Amino acid sequence: MAIWLLLLLSYAIFPLYSSAISITNKITPGFPSSKFIQPEQQATKTTTSKLYKEKFFTQILDHFNYNPQSYQKFQQRYLINDRYWGGAGNNNSPIFVYTGNEGDIEWFAQNTGFMFETAPYFKALLVFIEHRFYGKSMPYGGSKEIAYSNSSTLGYLSSTQALADYATLILDLKKNLSATDSPVVVFGGSYGGMLAAWFRLKYPHVAVGALASSAPILNFDNITSPFSFNNIITQDFRSESENCYKVIKRSWQEIENTAAKPGGLEILRKSFRICKNYISAGSLSNWLGTAYTYTAMTDYPTPTNFLNPLPAYPVKQMCKAIDDPATGNNTFEKLYGAANIYYNYTGEAKCFDLIDDSDPHGLGGWTWQACTEMILLTDGNTEDSIFPASNYSYNDRLEFCKSNFNIEPKPSWIPTEFGAQHIHRVLKRFGSNIIFFNGLRDPWSGGGVLKDISKSVIAIVAKEGAHHVDLRFSTSEDQGGFKM
Amino acid sequence: MAIWLLLLLSYAIFPLYSSAISITNKITPGFPSSKFIQPEQQATKTTTSKLYKEKFFTQILDHFNYNPQSYQKFQQRYLINDRYWGGAGNNNSPIFVYTGNEGDIEWFAQNTGFMFETAPYFKALLVFIEHRFYGKSMPYGGSKEIAYSNSSTLGYLSSTQALADYATLILDLKKNLSATDSPVVVFGGSYGGMLAAWFRLKYPHVAVGALASSAPILNFDNITSPFSFNNIITQDFRSESENCYKVIKRSWQEIENTAAKPGGLEILRKSFRICKNYISAGSLSNWLGTAYTYTAMTDYPTPTNFLNPLPAYPVKQMCKAIDDPATGNNTFEKLYGAANIYYNYTGEAKCFDLIDDSDPHGLGGWTWQACTEMILLTDGNTEDSIFPASNYSYNDRLEFCKSNFNIEPKPSWIPTEFGAQHIHRVLKRFGSNIIFFNGLRDPWSGGGVLKDISKSVIAIVAKEGAHHVDLRFSTSEDQGGFKM
Repeated sequence: MAIWLLLLLSYAIFPLYSSAISITNKITPGFPSSKFIQPEQQATKTTTSKLYKEKFFTQILDHFNYNPQSYQKFQQRYLINDRYWGGAGNNNSPIFVYTGNEGDIEWFAQNTGFMFETAPYFKALLVFIEHRFYGKSMPYGGSKEIAYSNSSTLGYLSSTQALADYATLILDLKKNLSATDSPVVVFGGSYGGMLAAWFRLKYPHVAVGALASSAPILNFDNITSPFSFNNIITQDFRSESENCYKVIKRSWQEIENTAAKPGGLEILRKSFRICKNYISAGSLSNWLGTAYTYTAMTDYPTPTNFLNPLPAYPVKQMCKAIDDPATGNNTFEKLYGAANIYYNYTGEAKCFDLIDDSDPHGLGGWTWQACTEMILLTDGNTEDSIFPASNYSYNDRLEFCKSNFNIEPKPSWIPTEFGAQHIHRVLKRFGSNIIFFNGLRDPWSGGGVLKDISKSVIAIVAKEGAHHVDLRFSTSEDQGGFKM
Repeated sequence: MAIWLLLLLSYAIFPLYSSAISITNKITPGFPSSKFIQPEQQATKTTTSKLYKEKFFTQILDHFNYNPQSYQKFQQRYLINDRYWGGAGNNNSPIFVYTGNEGDIEWFAQNTGFMFETAPYFKALLVFIEHRFYGKSMPYGGSKEIAYSNSSTLGYLSSTQALADYATLILDLKKNLSATDSPVVVFGGSYGGMLAAWFRLKYPHVAVGALASSAPILNFDNITSPFSFNNIITQDFRSESENCYKVIKRSWQEIENTAAKPGGLEILRKSFRICKNYISAGSLSNWLGTAYTYTAMTDYPTPTNFLNPLPAYPVKQMCKAIDDPATGNNTFEKLYGAANIYYNYTGEAKCFDLIDDSDPHGLGGWTWQACTEMILLTDGNTEDSIFPASNYSYNDRLEFCKSNFNIEPKPSWIPTEFGAQHIHRVLKRFGSNIIFFNGLRDPWSGGGVLKDISKSVIAIVAKEGAHHVDLRFSTSEDQGGFKM
């Protein structure tokens, strides 16, 4: 009856926040394991660090109130690259700004090659601004420990404050560069794409346009079906192989049945090479579900290292492992092969931790955002879902947030502040210069803008595209690639 | 050299905040005396109270943060009139919302007859929402004493919070009325007009259009000249009579000289019928300046009772008093005659208080707003000004705000948040459905939008119009009046 597990990806734009509900209805958040990829991650950073200089801006803590504490300042990090910039003065060459999302801004810069590759054509200055409460942009003297200590300090982590940060920083930067007439275009992917679109809508006097890639701005209450997200994951796997889908679909019960047997957990531990620590049916299912979900999201056509190192077309590779005749009818061996694609493509891992608290990209703040305003609905599973059928339950979120932060989410705030209902009607004669990109293999695309709204508020839809694939660096494997 | 007095109307949208700098550079705020008009004010209220019902909405204190104190609630007042409403359902009859400004919402409702008079033609529901921290819409259990006690509590009085209040209240009201598809049009005058325009720009998903009357959204740093405001007042008086302008212009020095003589203050006290309390050259000049300023602002073509009871064309009446041959060369008698138009048109006052702390419309919160974000620049006086020549000094504001609230204004915030620079360029292809009305006799019109921006962001300019005259009830004296 599938009551034992729900894959609760509700909060996840990226890795963000994946969680499972066990029979006891506890939500245990967990980030995708990535401890094995640290060396390569490090290498990437070394290579790409020449792409930009790191700077800091003295930012105000609270833009909207005037209590004494609102006046507190913090250092906000941004990365800048002026190699291609045509300069201000008579040229008024443009400024491309990445509106940072929920993590270390270097990570996003390194995965947004599109900006570096288009900059020379537009003689653009590149700026990547880090989101408050992430990376090095911590209020309270830069102390993450203090900033994350309780709801009084975390309270200033919100999307509206982040947008006001960007407006303030951009206007100040332009003034300092004597570039007040240089047009600004904002770019962002995922939550960063939401911020880019919202920024153009709320601050048209600061940005002349936005590229909002894989921005699920419609993934809110009563607008996008809470079944949409998992329906797309289901379809991703099913499109590769019906057998693959079926093996995964029936595996949840098999895991549950095995775990319930005497010695069953040991069987599971051995099958999945789980290290000698915590194991349960729920945590194992969550660990697998996380792998399927993020693999579907990052089902890129070239080898990548965004969340974890992955081969090209990783969903196809997972299904290949599952469909492999060599594993016969051994479901666990098949699933282990699939999980290996996501968790161990480099082959370095000898065993796995089901619960991994490492957070190499500094994404932890999303849990707070998901408990306050970012109530993205993704947890429903129909009878056909690759995951166990389940309804979305707002109460699970509520309980989790109450017990973790003693706070109640405000699910109606984002639609109130930014609008989402009837977006085609609202923006048809209002707003301009926004590109919404979505790849239809991306589970977030269900909450994206998929149809043109007006002549200059347009939708680009890539049928076979994954999560903001358009923003990635081009590679030699690209079919066609970027040409101007 | 005119160092002794500056009429510092910087904060005043309406009566708001008029202040004078004496030689010691102290700023003494003062509201226009209105104690003598209370009986008539009361009468108006009784008559117009049938125009609407009073309701309350449970509003959230802080929309943008999630600290525990942000979750506090307060009761926000709104007035509603459904007499003309065509209803929701198949009709989707519209909802006209007044975005309340810095005072008691009943006062604004009673002075916004335009909405009552147009409602029947559109079968519109009328809603007037009170601005937080004004009237009965006090946070902290409705206690003005607590709400205004210090900068920690006052800190939540800001324009962005007010706009978010309106969005939240409107969406909730529409839901409760099953009128989610009824289009909302927002109306406002003065600061309320700024809020209406900003509301349409920031919340296009909540309001389909805005009438922003006498909304000086460009009256900010480096956009509108700080001399503009007083230049218009000067022109208002000069257009009636060159002699009138000259008498007022040279009077400031005469007041100063007289005050400096032994027994001079007693001469001034007698000349102006000042009650037996505080008098100084500065306070008298400020009292007179306030009268000229607000009379210019409310130079309506019909008798009114907005700030004070006034005859039709009150600037003309003031100049008539000044030009009166019966007073010969007696400047003070002439000025007294002019002041009487503003302060004592009903003839009930026997003497006047120069410093009057009464605040019948509850406008006191504007001092806080003027010390935080509403840094409207109006204090400059050219050599030709009807007031003593002076430059605008931000430092005066800074010192006042530091000593009163221990707070530093943020003059760049409003242009950052709402935009003002290059508005024609910014909104040419962004935004729609905003009407900016301005009357050119209104000193605030210098900071208004006076030219069409696009096909649906348009400017209506009334050459002989005063402060949001378009919003007033029509009268039998109207030339033409409202016809549809």
